[in-house]
Amino acid sequence: MIMDKLCQRANERAPICVGLDTKIEYLPEYILKKPKSAAEKILEFNKRVIDATHDVCACFKVQVAYYEALGIEGMIAYAMTLQYIRKLGALSIGDIKRGDIAATGTMYAKAHFEGDFEADFITVNAYMGLDAVSPYFEYVEDGSKGMFILLKTSNASSEDFQDLAVDGEPLYCRVADKINAWGAPYVQSCGFSAIGAVVGLTHPKEIAQLRARMPHTFFLIPGYGAQGGTGRDLAELFQEGICGVVNASRAILTAHQKITENEDFTDFIRQATIAMKEDITQWL
Amino acid sequence: MIMDKLCQRANERAPICVGLDTKIEYLPEYILKKPKSAAEKILEFNKRVIDATHDVCACFKVQVAYYEALGIEGMIAYAMTLQYIRKLGALSIGDIKRGDIAATGTMYAKAHFEGDFEADFITVNAYMGLDAVSPYFEYVEDGSKGMFILLKTSNASSEDFQDLAVDGEPLYCRVADKINAWGAPYVQSCGFSAIGAVVGLTHPKEIAQLRARMPHTFFLIPGYGAQGGTGRDLAELFQEGICGVVNASRAILTAHQKITENEDFTDFIRQATIAMKEDITQWL
Repeated sequence: MIMDKLCQRANERAPICVGLDTKIEYLPEYILKKPKSAAEKILEFNKRVIDATHDVCACFKVQVAYYEALGIEGMIAYAMTLQYIRKLGALSIGDIKRGDIAATGTMYAKAHFEGDFEADFITVNAYMGLDAVSPYFEYVEDGSKGMFILLKTSNASSEDFQDLAVDGEPLYCRVADKINAWGAPYVQSCGFSAIGAVVGLTHPKEIAQLRARMPHTFFLIPGYGAQGGTGRDLAELFQEGICGVVNASRAILTAHQKITENEDFTDFIRQATIAMKEDITQWL
Repeated sequence: MIMDKLCQRANERAPICVGLDTKIEYLPEYILKKPKSAAEKILEFNKRVIDATHDVCACFKVQVAYYEALGIEGMIAYAMTLQYIRKLGALSIGDIKRGDIAATGTMYAKAHFEGDFEADFITVNAYMGLDAVSPYFEYVEDGSKGMFILLKTSNASSEDFQDLAVDGEPLYCRVADKINAWGAPYVQSCGFSAIGAVVGLTHPKEIAQLRARMPHTFFLIPGYGAQGGTGRDLAELFQEGICGVVNASRAILTAHQKITENEDFTDFIRQATIAMKEDITQWL
C-alpha cells in the first residue's frame, strides 16, 4: 500500500522529499559542457541527484512546470526522471496540481498514474470540488496510488482565498474537512489515508491545528528553507509522530555551488540532504 | 491586441469556441484505419476540424489533459495542434488550468506562452491567489497573450467550495472581484480585459449577475449542449452585446456519427458549428 510505504520511509530514512525543480543553472560545469540538449543535461543531473539521495530521503517530487517549460524535450526528461526513480525502487510525487471536471480528470489520471508520466503520487487542486479529485479514486482504492490535495499553500498570497472566513473559520478549514471525508475510506495500515494534503511550513501554527483536525491525513509540506520554514517549526507538527514529508528543492539541488575541482558534486547534494534530516530530527 | 482580436471574431464570426477535447473514438473510420499512432490520428482529425471551422468560430480551446493522457506522443500532437491553429491565423486557448507559486508559474508561462506549447490564451486556477496568476501578467501587459481564470465552473460539485458563503456572498464573488482588479490594467480597445474568466453556462442566473459585477471581463463559457446549457441561456448574458465565447466540444467533434460512405465528415463538423451559431444568435 503506497501510503504505508511512504510513511515507513519517512520514519526509517528521513521525512524529506527531494524536490526536482531542476533549473539549468543548478547544473555543475562538467554536465553543462556536454554536447547535449538542456533537457538531456537536466535528466543526467536528476539521475545523479536521485542516486545520491534515494536512500536518505522518503521520496522525490518532480515539479512538472520546469519540464513543460522545455517543451517536448522537457516532457521526455520528466518522463525519464520518473522512470529512473521507479527503477531504483524509490517513490515519486508528480507535482502537477491538476484540477478539472470529471471527464477531464479521468484523462489526467490516465496521464499521471499510467503511461509515460506515471508517478506514485500526484498533487491536485480541488477548487472545482469533488469532480476535481474523484477521477483519481479508483487508483487510490486499490492501494497503488496516492494524492495530495492543495489545502493551505506556502505562498504569501495563499491568504487571498484560502483564508477568507466561512462560518467564522478560514476557507481552508472547509477544504480540510472535505479532504478528511474524501480520504476516510482509504486509510491504510500506517493510520494515514492515501489522500493527503499540501500545507506550507510557512504557516506552522495553522498546520499544527490542521494536524489535530485531520489525524489520518499525511502532509506534503513545502516552504522549508528558502521560503522560511525551519526544523523547529516541524517539531510541533511531528510531536506525536511523523505525519508528513518536508519538501526541499533549491537548498539540496544547489548544495554544490562552492565545489572545487576534483570534488564530486553529488557528495554535496547527499550531505545537504543528511544535514536537513539532522535539522529536522534534532527537535523530535 | 489579443482580446480585441478574440472579441472581434466572436462578433463577426460566432461567439463559439470549438473545444478540441479529442478522443480516439470520435475519429471517422478512414482516419482510424491509417497505420499511424493514436496521437497522430488525433492530430490529423484536429487539423481537419480546424480547417472546417476556423472561419465560422472565434477560437479553439485545446484541453491538454486529452493529450497528456497519450504521453509524449500526445504532447507532440498537442504542440502541433496549437501550431496548426496559429498557422491558419486562428486563435487558441490552451486549457491547462495551471496554478502554482510564482516561481513555478513563471515556468508554466514559459511553457504555454512560448515554445512548443504556445497558445494565445491559457486557463488558470487561482486557488493559490495572486501568485498563481501574476507570472502571466508580463505576457498580458504587451497585449500578445490573454488568460481566463476559473471563476464559477460548469460542473455540479463547483458548489463544494465556490458557493461557500463569505460575508453573505458566495466565494466565487470574491474571486470575481479579484479577477476584476487584476484585469483592470489590461482593458483593451474592445472594452474587455486580457484577463477573462471561466463561468459555466450551467449557472445562467449566476453568470448574468457576474456580468453586471465585472463589465470589463470577457467570459469563456463551458457547459453548452451535453452539460445542459442552451442558446436561450446566453440571451440574457449577451443582452448588451457579446461578452464571451461559448465552448462546445463533443457536440461538434461527434457531429459526423451518422455519416454514410462517400460523405465528408468535415461537412457535418462545419454544419454543427453553424447550427450552434444559429441556436445562439436566434435569441440575440
